[in-house]
Amino acid sequence: MWYHTVFSELVNTKYPMVQAPMAGIGTTALAGTVSECGLLGSMGCAEMTVPQLYDTALTLREITDAPFNLNFFAHSEPDNYHQVDSVLIETLTPLYEKHSLPFPKVPLSAENTSFTEEKLKAVLEIKPKVISFHFGLPDTHALDALRNEGCLILCSATTVDEAVYLEKRGVDAIIAQGWEAGGHRGSFKVDNSDAGIGTMALVPQIVDKVRLPVIAAGGIGDGRGIAAAMLLGASGVQMGSAFLGCPETALPEAYATAIRQALETDTRLTRGFSGRPARAQQNLYTRSFLDQSFKLPNFPLMYEYSEPLIDVSTANGDDKYAYHLYGQAASLNRGLPAAQFIEGLINEVNKLLNR
Amino acid sequence: MWYHTVFSELVNTKYPMVQAPMAGIGTTALAGTVSECGLLGSMGCAEMTVPQLYDTALTLREITDAPFNLNFFAHSEPDNYHQVDSVLIETLTPLYEKHSLPFPKVPLSAENTSFTEEKLKAVLEIKPKVISFHFGLPDTHALDALRNEGCLILCSATTVDEAVYLEKRGVDAIIAQGWEAGGHRGSFKVDNSDAGIGTMALVPQIVDKVRLPVIAAGGIGDGRGIAAAMLLGASGVQMGSAFLGCPETALPEAYATAIRQALETDTRLTRGFSGRPARAQQNLYTRSFLDQSFKLPNFPLMYEYSEPLIDVSTANGDDKYAYHLYGQAASLNRGLPAAQFIEGLINEVNKLLNR
Repeated sequence: MWYHTVFSELVNTKYPMVQAPMAGIGTTALAGTVSECGLLGSMGCAEMTVPQLYDTALTLREITDAPFNLNFFAHSEPDNYHQVDSVLIETLTPLYEKHSLPFPKVPLSAENTSFTEEKLKAVLEIKPKVISFHFGLPDTHALDALRNEGCLILCSATTVDEAVYLEKRGVDAIIAQGWEAGGHRGSFKVDNSDAGIGTMALVPQIVDKVRLPVIAAGGIGDGRGIAAAMLLGASGVQMGSAFLGCPETALPEAYATAIRQALETDTRLTRGFSGRPARAQQNLYTRSFLDQSFKLPNFPLMYEYSEPLIDVSTANGDDKYAYHLYGQAASLNRGLPAAQFIEGLINEVNKLLNR
Repeated sequence: MWYHTVFSELVNTKYPMVQAPMAGIGTTALAGTVSECGLLGSMGCAEMTVPQLYDTALTLREITDAPFNLNFFAHSEPDNYHQVDSVLIETLTPLYEKHSLPFPKVPLSAENTSFTEEKLKAVLEIKPKVISFHFGLPDTHALDALRNEGCLILCSATTVDEAVYLEKRGVDAIIAQGWEAGGHRGSFKVDNSDAGIGTMALVPQIVDKVRLPVIAAGGIGDGRGIAAAMLLGASGVQMGSAFLGCPETALPEAYATAIRQALETDTRLTRGFSGRPARAQQNLYTRSFLDQSFKLPNFPLMYEYSEPLIDVSTANGDDKYAYHLYGQAASLNRGLPAAQFIEGLINEVNKLLNR
């Protein structure tokens, strides 16, 4: 069967399919159901406090005994708390004034979204079957500790070089994240060097250069995408936007509407929300950042400028400044409960690959 | 067999595979061999004179009796012969001065690369099995005349809307050109509206919205890509960069070296060469256009600024200003003669799809 792969064997799931962690969007109801259905459910934990981490794991384990994945961001500390580019101020001041919002003051502050020592300690106690990282990896001490507790380590790569680096650091599988993917690009560096490699091109080129199992991500929305990714040489797939149509995700109404009406042309990569490139619905807010030649506060400091405006759109239920992350194949979502959606996916791939 | 599709039946080839037309790069030796091997060989004819068109068809018919495709650009006349943005002049003057080149003078001039009445007349006499268009379609009078002579009409689409428009205009098949593809984007409009849809996301979304056969293009470099595209719902594939490794292509040495050493991260979309977005190797020249907020001369007038510098690199055999078009999966090329390369491709897909 197509679904017996080195990856499904490694993580001990029936299907070699990962539900993408979607920090701030995903729910334990979704991840738990997905894991219970034989896929790898994931929780985006980057923005969680330590008590929330324990709660999340507890809730997941009430739903399922199956393996799940906790996802974290591995990023360096922002270094520009005190400097703000005057062009950024000029760009955002009219929007702040229009909504009578106080303009953020330096020094900027942000929640610590990196993989701190206290989060590591919690994960070592929780012992998830899988932990995955985005933006690169934490230090060797953390990786060794996780391995010693039996956690499998996954990380995203957006280029062949990043994949080769991850293999050298000893991860267990690589998520090849193509240009089409919604949410944050996993690219290690934030500069102008991102070539934006599409999934169709990225997967076989990574597969050829590493020995590890490769999970294809980006633009995979239904059974056709899963089957295609497997034939590209992937050992599994990761899907995010496809699950945004599931009622378990519990999206705010404006976001749910955006997903129901999604078009392939809706989204753009923007640094305007967090400081790092993320694929989100293009709107009034992201259009102000089309020319990104000016320097933005580093991830995640930029949220201090975007969040007050995001809140305006949330309150009004509109899209103007909304932070609606999704990928280029989001239109393929079915709007079905997760279990039913997954059953349909598996049937589609069975038909395509077991002829 | 996977290769019996509505598309291979329509164009009467053994395999549902198109060798991409590569204006200025492809050769009759390549296209003729490809057609003789049972695929659809193509010639990029946009820059040819009428006598060259007749010569090309004659040479192809000496090599093969099989169907071939003649490709043309359908674009409106440039409207800015007389205006040149001062930022463009500032950007390029240092490069022109460095190489003691005379700076191009307004009014700009350009060869007529659009599908003129005299080119139409020649094609109606040549009667190729297939004619394909890029950047949109010519007028209804031309399409009707081509249909009356029995020519099948293909055209590229980079979005669902473009594909739906092409279907309404009565084309016979749609080339779904993904973000990964080398060379010119087929997008109809040149503005900031291109969302850059990757092949993995684009193909199924177009397949769901049109009844016509869809040919997947972009990032398809070997049997894995072909098999994947077929499972996405495509009725065929188009491959360009993969054929740039074939000796029949007869690339200049620096270009051939670039293809041999290609990395997935090499290329960027740039308007700096022709005025329209094209995926080319990033170099000193393309980097000067990273900020493309200033207005460039319309396609193909911009060539008047790029060609003198391209010629410098051609003479020096270097990459600095070179016009090396290729896609994100060019590294998968095998450097084999076309017939041998094609035989290998077919074997790979047979193994992947006929299990």
